Amino acid sequence: MSDHENPAVTRILFSPNDMLARKFVKDLMRENHLTIREDAMGNIFGRLEGSTPAAGVVLTGSHCDAIPLAGMYDGTLGVIGAIEALAALQRAGYKPLRPIEVMMFTSEEPTRFGLSCSGSRAMAGALTPEVLESKLDSGGRHFLQVANEVGYGGASTQDMLDATRVAEGAVSHFVELHIEQGPLLQREGVDIGVVTAIAAPAALEVLFVGDGGHAGGQLMPDRNDAGLAGAELALAVERHVLATGSVDTVGTTGTFEIAPGAINSVPREARLAIDIRDIDGPRRDQVVAAVLKSAEEIAEKRNVRMSSRIINQDPPATCHADIVEAVAASAGALGLSTKRMVSRAYHDSLFMARVAPTGMIFIPCKNGWSHRPDEFSSATDIANGVSVLALTLARLSGGSWPKAEL
Amino acid sequence: MSDHENPAVTRILFSPNDMLARKFVKDLMRENHLTIREDAMGNIFGRLEGSTPAAGVVLTGSHCDAIPLAGMYDGTLGVIGAIEALAALQRAGYKPLRPIEVMMFTSEEPTRFGLSCSGSRAMAGALTPEVLESKLDSGGRHFLQVANEVGYGGASTQDMLDATRVAEGAVSHFVELHIEQGPLLQREGVDIGVVTAIAAPAALEVLFVGDGGHAGGQLMPDRNDAGLAGAELALAVERHVLATGSVDTVGTTGTFEIAPGAINSVPREARLAIDIRDIDGPRRDQVVAAVLKSAEEIAEKRNVRMSSRIINQDPPATCHADIVEAVAASAGALGLSTKRMVSRAYHDSLFMARVAPTGMIFIPCKNGWSHRPDEFSSATDIANGVSVLALTLARLSGGSWPKAEL
Repeated sequence: MSDHENPAVTRILFSPNDMLARKFVKDLMRENHLTIREDAMGNIFGRLEGSTPAAGVVLTGSHCDAIPLAGMYDGTLGVIGAIEALAALQRAGYKPLRPIEVMMFTSEEPTRFGLSCSGSRAMAGALTPEVLESKLDSGGRHFLQVANEVGYGGASTQDMLDATRVAEGAVSHFVELHIEQGPLLQREGVDIGVVTAIAAPAALEVLFVGDGGHAGGQLMPDRNDAGLAGAELALAVERHVLATGSVDTVGTTGTFEIAPGAINSVPREARLAIDIRDIDGPRRDQVVAAVLKSAEEIAEKRNVRMSSRIINQDPPATCHADIVEAVAASAGALGLSTKRMVSRAYHDSLFMARVAPTGMIFIPCKNGWSHRPDEFSSATDIANGVSVLALTLARLSGGSWPKAEL
Repeated sequence: MSDHENPAVTRILFSPNDMLARKFVKDLMRENHLTIREDAMGNIFGRLEGSTPAAGVVLTGSHCDAIPLAGMYDGTLGVIGAIEALAALQRAGYKPLRPIEVMMFTSEEPTRFGLSCSGSRAMAGALTPEVLESKLDSGGRHFLQVANEVGYGGASTQDMLDATRVAEGAVSHFVELHIEQGPLLQREGVDIGVVTAIAAPAALEVLFVGDGGHAGGQLMPDRNDAGLAGAELALAVERHVLATGSVDTVGTTGTFEIAPGAINSVPREARLAIDIRDIDGPRRDQVVAAVLKSAEEIAEKRNVRMSSRIINQDPPATCHADIVEAVAASAGALGLSTKRMVSRAYHDSLFMARVAPTGMIFIPCKNGWSHRPDEFSSATDIANGVSVLALTLARLSGGSWPKAEL
């Protein structure tokens, strides 16, 4: 269920391998006695009924899509692990009061349409038809077209988004189990990360356009090389990020495409996608502004044309105290060490926080590596995370144990 | 006969459109009473017989392949223009002494196999089976496989190369008509460039490999971003080239590919192809050495792995005095102004100079633009170039005019 061989994982939204992964998740939900529902965006839900079915649901989950050549834990842990948590609660005889649902979000990764967290944005009402329709995949197709082909979607993008949006009060809490994607838990030998906030991500695209020319015939003084403008901007991103002096500011030029891209041609175009994050929203915005100013100055200096657009610039999210306490207490009951920490990575939790009290549980991952084939969390750390999630869900649901608590 | 719409031209070796272009050239040769021959590499020859058929042939020609989104003059002028020159000589009643052949070279551009001037390298015996077999196209296939499919090639790469090599003395002179691909003729209002030397080209590839990671989770101090190493190297290329202080030194980072190439991933790999040229071979080699030294220093500083290879590093070529004089005299006879100049672009002439006295004729092109869709030379300049070529070929062939010279 990956477009690359194990351990590398590439799973692109609505690709054949993504559809196989979806089937696997639904089969696993069914085997564990969960009732399956899918929404118009392709978000998948598996429900463990509560004694008060009409109460707001306790929701948990993550995503299974993966960027090219990623690893097997990012996202997937929070889906498979949550199904196992519900299985464990059932085995232990736990009876939920609020219903508990485990879910798999559609397209947390931006690979296909250049938009992260499509499923959770739509659930939170944070996605407009204009924005979604402005995104095309590399085949020039819209989300709706592709969704309709695989059995999701609707008559229009508006219909699809309306049908996906979560009703007010329908979700009482949201919790996501995830690998840290940073080195701190492993470095400090801590079992469980109790997430208190999710960093504010921003993404922008900058295009430089020069006149190109022949790499032999075009003399240096006559050039306006768009590739070199791009190179300067990539280095400026790093400089502006380091200038904040805070380890919490990160910035990345993750795509850098030049055209025509021939060894004997001066680059005529350079297209950069830049990701800037911080737990401090205003400080993040200052870096975004500094990068855009540098882009203008570089374009001026190198006599190239420049255009830019903000792909997204979302506010940070604070985790809800009730969930932070529930996670910490659950870990404590299991004798696990904890650290309160910030998530610097982007998660569906960021958007779920707009519709419900939200929290996250982190487990250590090797060297903080993520989005690469050697991404790794140990079986012990995974078991710890699943146990903490199970107890947290039980606390939030407010149900009853057959005897004393686990 | 292009993979992109007019005026953009993309014509890749042995692609369906390249094969159509080959048919067009052969039809045109036939219409103009030239006898056609093709060699094992797909070089096409159209012969106007001389009164001494056994004498070394006066050869002229260029190429019709084109890099992605190039223009319609680079190369093609020297093929179609040469056929017209031979037609004009026949119309004028000129009778050659040495045979004159116009030719179209196979794959002057490096697009498909990453090797420029495949046809002329092979004719000059400057291509080994090892080198040619080390080159694969994007479909993972060798030159020989592709050549055999379209009716060229041979039983082995060695056979093909042996069959292509020009016998000693078989070519008495080689002349190539080409657009300048630089701005000097237009800027100075000169009609014809008489080329005295062809700059020494070198091409190298540098690969940086870091550890990648998640663009949010991987903190700045923990990164070794291969993309930023690449950005520094691209700027170092420019710096080293400018440091020679000579306008004749040019350097270009024409391809810059990063992987995984996702906005939320720290680049793990950056692959750069760098082109460095100079009319002064040793000075060019100093720049190549300085670039490789910078690559090592950048890799050390950024803690990324680095590997590099020289794709080619050919010596410059000097044009033969006999041809330089023949071109200048022909232009003079037509009342056209001339400038002696160096070709900074790579041509098949560079390799033909190894087997025969060689020269080139340049005509102005708009703003020096080349390898782009708006590449342009005027009808007047083209007619001037064809006339100078015709008279030059007549002088070199040593044949007879019906009455006084044209």
